[in-house]
Amino acid sequence: MSTEASGKGILLKADPIANAFRDEIKAALAERPRPPKLVGILATSAAPSKFYADFTQKQCDALGVEFVLKRTGAAADPSAGEGDGVEEAIIEANEDNSVDGIMVYYPIFGVQQDHYLQQVVSPLKDVEGLHFKFHYNLYHNIRFLDPTSLLSSVPPTSLPPPAVEDQPPAGTVKSILPCTPLAVVKCLEHIGVYNRILPYGDRAYGKTITVINRSEVVGRPLAALLANDGARVLSVDIDSIQEYTKRPVTEAERRFHPRHVVRPSSLSLQECLAISDVVVSAVPSAEYKVKTAWLKDGCVCINVAADKNFEADVREKASVYMPTIGRVTITMLLRNLLRLQQYGEVSKQTS
Amino acid sequence: MSTEASGKGILLKADPIANAFRDEIKAALAERPRPPKLVGILATSAAPSKFYADFTQKQCDALGVEFVLKRTGAAADPSAGEGDGVEEAIIEANEDNSVDGIMVYYPIFGVQQDHYLQQVVSPLKDVEGLHFKFHYNLYHNIRFLDPTSLLSSVPPTSLPPPAVEDQPPAGTVKSILPCTPLAVVKCLEHIGVYNRILPYGDRAYGKTITVINRSEVVGRPLAALLANDGARVLSVDIDSIQEYTKRPVTEAERRFHPRHVVRPSSLSLQECLAISDVVVSAVPSAEYKVKTAWLKDGCVCINVAADKNFEADVREKASVYMPTIGRVTITMLLRNLLRLQQYGEVSKQTS
Repeated sequence: MSTEASGKGILLKADPIANAFRDEIKAALAERPRPPKLVGILATSAAPSKFYADFTQKQCDALGVEFVLKRTGAAADPSAGEGDGVEEAIIEANEDNSVDGIMVYYPIFGVQQDHYLQQVVSPLKDVEGLHFKFHYNLYHNIRFLDPTSLLSSVPPTSLPPPAVEDQPPAGTVKSILPCTPLAVVKCLEHIGVYNRILPYGDRAYGKTITVINRSEVVGRPLAALLANDGARVLSVDIDSIQEYTKRPVTEAERRFHPRHVVRPSSLSLQECLAISDVVVSAVPSAEYKVKTAWLKDGCVCINVAADKNFEADVREKASVYMPTIGRVTITMLLRNLLRLQQYGEVSKQTS
Repeated sequence: MSTEASGKGILLKADPIANAFRDEIKAALAERPRPPKLVGILATSAAPSKFYADFTQKQCDALGVEFVLKRTGAAADPSAGEGDGVEEAIIEANEDNSVDGIMVYYPIFGVQQDHYLQQVVSPLKDVEGLHFKFHYNLYHNIRFLDPTSLLSSVPPTSLPPPAVEDQPPAGTVKSILPCTPLAVVKCLEHIGVYNRILPYGDRAYGKTITVINRSEVVGRPLAALLANDGARVLSVDIDSIQEYTKRPVTEAERRFHPRHVVRPSSLSLQECLAISDVVVSAVPSAEYKVKTAWLKDGCVCINVAADKNFEADVREKASVYMPTIGRVTITMLLRNLLRLQQYGEVSKQTS
């Protein structure tokens, strides 16, 4: 951690948070009979995807995870179309028993067709946690699962009681969470926004958190995850603001407890920021900036976008500012890989 | 059919096409021990959704299908949020054994979150054919399936040979196709664009078809469906034009035959229209118009959008113009309902 004369708040890098998990991953790897194998699928000529693929390679090499990058489409042949062959590459990796995890470098075709591809990846190999089944579990606060249930296309008919402990009950494993939202939670735990004195599953109680972006990949799962952990979340999208909370007010809301409920909010963005202990921004635009003047003094600001969504003087108001969390995200991905390798073993035993 | 002095081409209404299928549905219903039950879920205050729900009710009443409309969110209570409770209503209908089919009136939250909801609907009750499993089958030209395979979240590991007959082999049933793309195919069969002299599965061979729109709900499945039936399809989106065909040229493409392949196209929209025997437009905008001047003389034009995507003088060039296919679409939905009712019986027998 470092403080600079230019600002009051701390500029927090992702490295110390990522490193703690790297040590945990290394210890777990040492106990495995073979290193897990991750396949990356690069199907476009986009520079950020190429960069992220190289970054994955380095992280895997450093930890001793086997990484194989498959290039297809414009990534393999400049005369081929962007995304050509990507679905076939995913299916091949699904069917290859030596592969434990699959990650695909998005965006490829645009949100709709990319969403289709995310369902083609077998949930048993989905290190990114983008499969519908994982989103369904997240939205319904289902934290533990029987891994063989991932083979069923039918959602669970009855919801389990809320988790009161961090450890999965016998016969179950932890559900996979999407990497980026999970990385944000891990950062907030490190920073102390999550209060360890409170019971598991409710450690963000008392905190108000604004999440700017409501995509299915980042913003909405993050809002749900934080609300399931007890926070009052203000979810800001381009055309509406909603409140996510698991503390019901009406009788109808009480029916769905302990799942979070979502209500339209009458607050403006400025009013949201004025009361928020944490602001997470994930707007895919270099032009978009959260106004420092609108922030609550002493808040925590986390930039999840590839571009900088906060103004240069953000630390004039923020007590902690994280400009990027990418290294935590990739670490969560590798943690998911280890978990899926275990799922595979459990599934093989029972099938 | 009618010709008017104002235009050369025929203005073709959806009714005669829908009526032929209505008779088929009535005959099938007469043989069922009980009428199938369809649940409609209306969660917004949008007038077109309300209109479509009323339309579904009328069609079901006329045919003897049991229809129950569930209202939630802003459709039930003007003070509630748009879409409130819709996911819970879907889950309730999934779990209700008396329900054979579920249709949800979209749009609700926007394409991404709506796509999530489409996966919440059980594939065994998905009359709209929007579940990932049905899209996967469509994109891979898998026409028949063992209905119990719908219960598995894992895509089939090996692709069956291409279908050479219209009838499913023993132990299998026809896969569900999304209603709107299927309705377009039925219209093209009626008009004679599909050539009955050609073998099943290749009856659109020789035809060039432009499809304007590449959404996951209409344009992309339609392009794939037509290409799987042998057509050369030019798929036009706001920022690119692609060609869908199942006639491979390169060695790489041959690997994926008899699935269609997709290539970037260097043609402009004007060049596409100049060579197209059929133009299907599904652009959700009242401003968007296909230029009559660009059409090939004698082509077939089908408007799938709620707004009119063709100019008023379209029949100066088109030999056949269908301004709307809504009645065929709802008929396909009810046909899917009958099929799903049968799936349910097969699944109950085997589970």
